[in-house]
Amino acid sequence: MLPQDTNERLTQVGRGTPGGDLLRRYWWPVAVSGEVENETVIAVRLMGEDLALYRTESGKLGLMAQRCAHRGASLVYGIPEEDGLRCPYHGWRYSPDGQCNETPGEPADSTFKEKVCIAAYPVQELGGLVFAYLGPMPAPLLPRWDVLARDDLKREVGITHLPINWLALAENQMDPYHLDYLHTRYMNYVMKKQGKAPVSTERRHLEIAFDMWELGIMKRRLLEGDDPETSEEWLVGHPLLFPNTLALGGERPRLGYRVPVDDTNIIVYSMFTVPGKDGEPRSQGSSFYEIPYKHGDGSLNVETVLGTDFMACVTQGEIPDREGERLGTTDRGIILYRRLLNEQIDKVERGEDPMGVIRDPARNTPMISIPRERDAFFTHTGGMVANANQFEDDPLAMIRAKKDVRDPAHAKG
Amino acid sequence: MLPQDTNERLTQVGRGTPGGDLLRRYWWPVAVSGEVENETVIAVRLMGEDLALYRTESGKLGLMAQRCAHRGASLVYGIPEEDGLRCPYHGWRYSPDGQCNETPGEPADSTFKEKVCIAAYPVQELGGLVFAYLGPMPAPLLPRWDVLARDDLKREVGITHLPINWLALAENQMDPYHLDYLHTRYMNYVMKKQGKAPVSTERRHLEIAFDMWELGIMKRRLLEGDDPETSEEWLVGHPLLFPNTLALGGERPRLGYRVPVDDTNIIVYSMFTVPGKDGEPRSQGSSFYEIPYKHGDGSLNVETVLGTDFMACVTQGEIPDREGERLGTTDRGIILYRRLLNEQIDKVERGEDPMGVIRDPARNTPMISIPRERDAFFTHTGGMVANANQFEDDPLAMIRAKKDVRDPAHAKG
Amino acid sequence: MLPQDTNERLTQVGRGTPGGDLLRRYWWPVAVSGEVENETVIAVRLMGEDLALYRTESGKLGLMAQRCAHRGASLVYGIPEEDGLRCPYHGWRYSPDGQCNETPGEPADSTFKEKVCIAAYPVQELGGLVFAYLGPMPAPLLPRWDVLARDDLKREVGITHLPINWLALAENQMDPYHLDYLHTRYMNYVMKKQGKAPVSTERRHLEIAFDMWELGIMKRRLLEGDDPETSEEWLVGHPLLFPNTLALGGERPRLGYRVPVDDTNIIVYSMFTVPGKDGEPRSQGSSFYEIPYKHGDGSLNVETVLGTDFMACVTQGEIPDREGERLGTTDRGIILYRRLLNEQIDKVERGEDPMGVIRDPARNTPMISIPRERDAFFTHTGGMVANANQFEDDPLAMIRAKKDVRDPAHAKG
Repeated sequence: MLPQDTNERLTQVGRGTPGGDLLRRYWWPVAVSGEVENETVIAVRLMGEDLALYRTESGKLGLMAQRCAHRGASLVYGIPEEDGLRCPYHGWRYSPDGQCNETPGEPADSTFKEKVCIAAYPVQELGGLVFAYLGPMPAPLLPRWDVLARDDLKREVGITHLPINWLALAENQMDPYHLDYLHTRYMNYVMKKQGKAPVSTERRHLEIAFDMWELGIMKRRLLEGDDPETSEEWLVGHPLLFPNTLALGGERPRLGYRVPVDDTNIIVYSMFTVPGKDGEPRSQGSSFYEIPYKHGDGSLNVETVLGTDFMACVTQGEIPDREGERLGTTDRGIILYRRLLNEQIDKVERGEDPMGVIRDPARNTPMISIPRERDAFFTHTGGMVANANQFEDDPLAMIRAKKDVRDPAHAKG
Repeated sequence: MLPQDTNERLTQVGRGTPGGDLLRRYWWPVAVSGEVENETVIAVRLMGEDLALYRTESGKLGLMAQRCAHRGASLVYGIPEEDGLRCPYHGWRYSPDGQCNETPGEPADSTFKEKVCIAAYPVQELGGLVFAYLGPMPAPLLPRWDVLARDDLKREVGITHLPINWLALAENQMDPYHLDYLHTRYMNYVMKKQGKAPVSTERRHLEIAFDMWELGIMKRRLLEGDDPETSEEWLVGHPLLFPNTLALGGERPRLGYRVPVDDTNIIVYSMFTVPGKDGEPRSQGSSFYEIPYKHGDGSLNVETVLGTDFMACVTQGEIPDREGERLGTTDRGIILYRRLLNEQIDKVERGEDPMGVIRDPARNTPMISIPRERDAFFTHTGGMVANANQFEDDPLAMIRAKKDVRDPAHAKG
Repeated sequence: MLPQDTNERLTQVGRGTPGGDLLRRYWWPVAVSGEVENETVIAVRLMGEDLALYRTESGKLGLMAQRCAHRGASLVYGIPEEDGLRCPYHGWRYSPDGQCNETPGEPADSTFKEKVCIAAYPVQELGGLVFAYLGPMPAPLLPRWDVLARDDLKREVGITHLPINWLALAENQMDPYHLDYLHTRYMNYVMKKQGKAPVSTERRHLEIAFDMWELGIMKRRLLEGDDPETSEEWLVGHPLLFPNTLALGGERPRLGYRVPVDDTNIIVYSMFTVPGKDGEPRSQGSSFYEIPYKHGDGSLNVETVLGTDFMACVTQGEIPDREGERLGTTDRGIILYRRLLNEQIDKVERGEDPMGVIRDPARNTPMISIPRERDAFFTHTGGMVANANQFEDDPLAMIRAKKDVRDPAHAKG
């Protein structure tokens, strides 16, 4: 049971709210690289702010407020130029830092433009994602997680828009026990109803545990039948990278970003990888596709692990009422996480860096190896699939939506 | 002219409102039997409450609140078991009375579940409809209207979702005079505009009358050309079964339930019947189909009697402003009905049973014969159709939407 | 920068608001003649009022409130009769002035109907448009602009629904400078991105000027390369007909009406004309079609002059925040226009006729010649099209949407 005011403190993402100010201390993905091609502008929305993300003809990225300061027309319809982004309406141009540097209709000697600027934010690209930072300067380093920085991985990104606040899905990640029902018994029940064989071996949790780690929380589980002396899921586990990124998988490492679009919307970027084969040309970016959380008829997708996670969170409502909830002993990860969030909000209010903000290049270079079990019962195609070997050549085939695959090289493979 | 506060008193359906507390004293259909198959859960909404209606593998029905008490996930995605409904998220199970009877993640000796329960309501099935009761206990009897209880009728149910409060359509039923225009002259005008022959003989009302009856209000009319000594429409009429069910028809009796979904939505279940032929196997349930109130292009259906009723009510707005209305002498049925509603609300506030609540099994068994005229100018396919004999073999063909017929036996017939 | 309260004063269109009372002093188009055929009723919405526009079998037009005074059913489903409009529900009939003149269900000698009336408004037809006047009586004259009144023009009307307040598009018209970017450089950029040749010669404004004129504001521009002694765009220009009608074009004159539907919606009627050829039968009305402001995929149309104007206004938001805007020297037309609007609102509040209200038949008969340049760089198909001569036979082909053309004579041409 969480009082309503604490629930708001944790869930609000707007500028000036306690939670929003915490979330602004981190870099967030705002697009897959392939979504913003050269000489293109796209609309992005992050923590309630409407922004124009552009890439110039030579490939430079920029991010600024969507409205021109002049008349309020949208810079999403602007012209990306090497010196900045130009409004389509009267040609006012903003440099990448948001300073107006040209007002074509004004007299040649006018200094008016010097008094005009709009919000602009740093943007960086890594591992096929475009990241933005909306917080106070100086910006921390963009974390070079191994999954993003390794040059031997083929990556693809599934994109899911969900009409919910970000917190429920983060809490879902701190709740190992739901694997017992949601991802095994329930999915088997769904399969049975569809006249299909079970997809998963049902195994019970004997123990769950959580350890604080420098950059987040390690989540561990001991499953029925596993040896506590050797089980990596118990000895190592895998982390939530604070504030809310999921890292998972051994040979085929994964990241799951859950980006707060506004108080009641998130975009989930699910990055899947496979090691490239010897001699295979490496994809520089990431292919991407939509992973819808509902079917065309409006019913929720409950046929995949991701789908059931989304169902369990979406059906709680936009911002779940936590005053009525009844937490049990298996929810101690959620309680721990809420306490950690509160503490980090406190730190930001005291002017300190919260957990997971990285400023030391030595820590970040060449990359940050994420501790995680090499093999988990539950990885995206691991223990969840009875006949996983059929996916050997293309382990992501089960999850990937066929439409919207834009990487032709991959599509052929 | 109805003051706004009285209008609210009569139209609000939420728990704790005067009108909502009156409506909670009755059983309401929440589904056609065929909509909730074995081992299935469906979402229903009744008087503003979101509920999960389920049927177990062995056929038992249950109805409870949609949200699991634990984390708020939806039980509509739950697993119906013989001992209750199980949440898909962590497997908490609720017995049919809403008491939590299993919390699999908790220690074996935990008594936590004993403190957890959610709202649950009685549900019964009759004549191919599933009825729910959301009021105070003990629940009254589910009325065994002859149309529901007879075993010699073939039944089908048309389902219409309307974005309006329930009262306008109830008042429409207490307004016999609109037959003169809406269902005859206007429909003939619509036909003429479409280049078709008139569908109806236009006859004027000479008299209208209303009689209080034990279980509702009898509505009577004397039409031009009819003999007041023999006309059953004048001598008998047909009732509104309080609070708002329409009963109609002789050889092919009908019921019309208008179910308050919330303040601004209703579902109309229009039950049509025909006597089965000798030796014909009887359908146990009801086939069903949608009767949309608009066409695919968004224009309202004004080609059928039901369609014109819906048009006349929908166009009054979600909750019509009654302070501006101008009632005439033909509206005395509406005035009578509003007074009756107010009196019944008063009774409920005094702790008494309102009109139409049946608690005596002798009154309800084996069934309640509804008094009604054997033959009316205006029944669903009667006087309204110039060439009604073409429908002799399948008298409902005119109204039934061809799509969504799910009873294969019927579809072939 | 416009204070929020002044912004509201200028943008609100409801009855009883300062801006709404000003706008009610003018005739507004509510339909193209062809939209309301004989014996037809259509729904129209003007300045927040929902109305029923009907035409009787003999061709007479009428306009009245949408709700019947009796029970509130919609007169849009009414029956248009020579003596007025009849409600479909109980047959109450209203004469064209809104007075109820028949209540069929009431006793023959009832005087009840004499006490019943609903709002009704004058309506007139000219040049293929239906105009309504919702202000205080006596109504001023419907302006007989030459484009409407000439009998030697073939007319067609493009209809665009925009989800914005009316003011932004009016201000766009008082902003000549945006031609430099929005309609030339930006459109050429769009063409380049699509791999197409530029559509426009890019020329710079050397001067812009505004002159008050009896019926509005003349807008003038001197373009680079033009001779100020001979340029009609500089010497004459073209007007905004107060309050907000665009008049344009020489041989092929145009009108653009931007009709305030409510605070956040407008309908733009773009009337295009070409002189009929000798001996060609004249169309009495106007053919019409939709000019959508977005493509089927939801992206805004930025491939035409009209489309880019709509984009520049729609992206400012429903009612743009003007406290944050930064006006420059090229925006002096906007500042002038806002001052004029404020002055005219003041006049209405003093009980005077505002600018553009015409009451003298001599001024209005046989028509009002609109002063405008004979040939402009920027007319609908003029200077904007590199190879305009390809449109010689059908100069509107570029703009016209092919669908929804309902004038068969034109369609063949």
